[in-house]
Amino acid sequence: MSKLTIAEKVASDMKSGSWIREMFEKGRRLKAELGAENVHDFSLGNPNEPPPDAFFQALQAVAADRQPALHGYMPNVGFDESRAAVAKFVSHEYRMEVEPGAVILTTGAAGGMNMVMRTICNPGDEVLVLAPFFVEYKFYIEQAGGKMVLVQTDEKFQPELDAIEAAITPRTRAININTPNNPTGAVYTEEKCRGLADLLKRHDDDEHPIYIATDDPYRRIIFDLDWCPTPATHYDRTIIVSSYSKDLSIAGERAGYVALPKALPYRDMIFAAMAMLNRTLGYVNMPAFMQRVVARCAEALCDVDSYRSNRDLLCHALLEYGYELTMPGGALYAFPKTPLDDVEFVNILMKHNILAVPGRGFGRPGHMRISYCVDRKTIERALPGFKAAIEEARNRLSPVAQ
Amino acid sequence: MSKLTIAEKVASDMKSGSWIREMFEKGRRLKAELGAENVHDFSLGNPNEPPPDAFFQALQAVAADRQPALHGYMPNVGFDESRAAVAKFVSHEYRMEVEPGAVILTTGAAGGMNMVMRTICNPGDEVLVLAPFFVEYKFYIEQAGGKMVLVQTDEKFQPELDAIEAAITPRTRAININTPNNPTGAVYTEEKCRGLADLLKRHDDDEHPIYIATDDPYRRIIFDLDWCPTPATHYDRTIIVSSYSKDLSIAGERAGYVALPKALPYRDMIFAAMAMLNRTLGYVNMPAFMQRVVARCAEALCDVDSYRSNRDLLCHALLEYGYELTMPGGALYAFPKTPLDDVEFVNILMKHNILAVPGRGFGRPGHMRISYCVDRKTIERALPGFKAAIEEARNRLSPVAQ
Repeated sequence: MSKLTIAEKVASDMKSGSWIREMFEKGRRLKAELGAENVHDFSLGNPNEPPPDAFFQALQAVAADRQPALHGYMPNVGFDESRAAVAKFVSHEYRMEVEPGAVILTTGAAGGMNMVMRTICNPGDEVLVLAPFFVEYKFYIEQAGGKMVLVQTDEKFQPELDAIEAAITPRTRAININTPNNPTGAVYTEEKCRGLADLLKRHDDDEHPIYIATDDPYRRIIFDLDWCPTPATHYDRTIIVSSYSKDLSIAGERAGYVALPKALPYRDMIFAAMAMLNRTLGYVNMPAFMQRVVARCAEALCDVDSYRSNRDLLCHALLEYGYELTMPGGALYAFPKTPLDDVEFVNILMKHNILAVPGRGFGRPGHMRISYCVDRKTIERALPGFKAAIEEARNRLSPVAQ
Repeated sequence: MSKLTIAEKVASDMKSGSWIREMFEKGRRLKAELGAENVHDFSLGNPNEPPPDAFFQALQAVAADRQPALHGYMPNVGFDESRAAVAKFVSHEYRMEVEPGAVILTTGAAGGMNMVMRTICNPGDEVLVLAPFFVEYKFYIEQAGGKMVLVQTDEKFQPELDAIEAAITPRTRAININTPNNPTGAVYTEEKCRGLADLLKRHDDDEHPIYIATDDPYRRIIFDLDWCPTPATHYDRTIIVSSYSKDLSIAGERAGYVALPKALPYRDMIFAAMAMLNRTLGYVNMPAFMQRVVARCAEALCDVDSYRSNRDLLCHALLEYGYELTMPGGALYAFPKTPLDDVEFVNILMKHNILAVPGRGFGRPGHMRISYCVDRKTIERALPGFKAAIEEARNRLSPVAQ
């Protein structure tokens, strides 16, 4: 291949993810060998709960409506009635006023976050990301010309405020906040959210604005609280990015949004930039059909209880087997420590037909991500393997003479 | 506003489009004043033909299928059966073999073209665009780090092969080809397509690859031919980008695709890069629901006869009134010369409650784009205004003593 066949940056990005692909390939071979039903796959963040009934009802109602113009272009920010439904939902969910005119419907939170990064980053601007982190942020930031700056969270995966403050430079333009968190399941405390806002206020002003960009698709997937704390409550320069992917279990439908709270400084200018970028970045608009579906079921929610009982089953068993684990408060993931090097341990799990993702893929080696958005039976069948794996690891660490 | 509120490039892009927004605002005010039904709006490329019946049938069939997993993530390139349906359609339509495994479903041609530019452009690489041109190409190229190089077409809007060859440099990585063309309606001749391929072959090699990226959403909207010529027939290093937006009149649904012909050198590497970029650029996948719909009606087509009769009605009248016009062979647009400066003349049309877009917005002043994807009645009612406007322009040019 000529080195010019594809862009150098793209080739290098492909290479940097190659060990993940290698693990994925191993898993694929295992499934081919044993049958997919005999491999316990905890490697994917694909919600398994069925969409709520309200979603299927909305699908059929919208499909039955034969108005041709409803499949054509609308303003790039979305249909008015869909934006109004999202604004009403967001205002209630975040306990703050978000007007319909300040909502932009996007192709998922991924499209929204790319658009936000592009809106605010000049080349070389820095965006803080708390690790462990959703690896795609790196692409979103770099594709916008920015530079990702990682800041580790503490042992329980809560933000370390001093470390964040130490990472701020005159080039810092934003911090991405994802709570409940992928990959750790951490729900940031109210105290941390307020503390984060307070520290940012000491550095933010109109000449050196620092945005919080929230990535909130797991916001309603919480197990131990009635309401998920958010820095948006405490910090005006916040841009809310989210989607219905997890609420409605429709990750493949790319139904996302960006919402600009009323207190956001220069909101109109930011809105205008995003309305242009949503188009020029090639998303153009959230697909028309799904806009109309979401407008009809914006408050609906899948069965969170089922995820909670998955978490409880898996995590209590892991703790019993001796894994070190911070109980996840939300999202779809547990992030225990691995008793050995994370890649080595994930390979041991694979011998027990279990697929998980090494923590180094998320910026924290010595851990692994276990996605429990799977059938309860998958967890039940995998538990003996998790038990055997940690025992095998212990034997490797302190071999007993036979 | 602080100059740092939004990125400088974004602010500058917004400013450069400001006169278009100004015209759009004028049109909006006119509609508010007179009622939208009394303004003859030829400014938008939003297909007005209803989607074919097969589309609505597919919508309802897919909506009635309650399998939950069909709304979740699938491989980022799309469902296998949808890719197979698109591959079959593309192979037939382009008269060349495109395998299902070489199709990537995208969020419209816009998402596809952004992804292609990002795949092949290193910073500063040049992409040739034939003017008049669809202005969004500039964004797609620049957002990928590339540089747009404009090459004017001839008086009939056909490619000028000598001018294209003269524009090629060692940094040239691609040429975007859009036939039938927006904004001119030109259908490139077989001779021009072959000639373009021949000249590119003189400069292309593995060390200096030059891609043709076709942007083909209007491919089946042709009025005087049975089949639209394409350079893809003659040139191996072609990447096909298209969508169902115009075939099915569903521009708001973002149902696009990229197809890699079997002869494309290093096809697997290019495919792998695009599969990654489709995800990291935030499209992730073409929305699941519409993938399944398109798979069921990939061959369907809206009523092209209706567009043809719109073209005939409008263009014959314009010629009769004395407009200089190359008869468009396809797409949804006429691009006549304006008898005065294009912005000045479009303002005269506006006095007759007619909205059109000045040619300078597409890189060719002294012309205007008239989108005739409108009700036939809109054309009928506007014709007296088109007549009066050219007469007024003539009077301005050669005033007669009263």
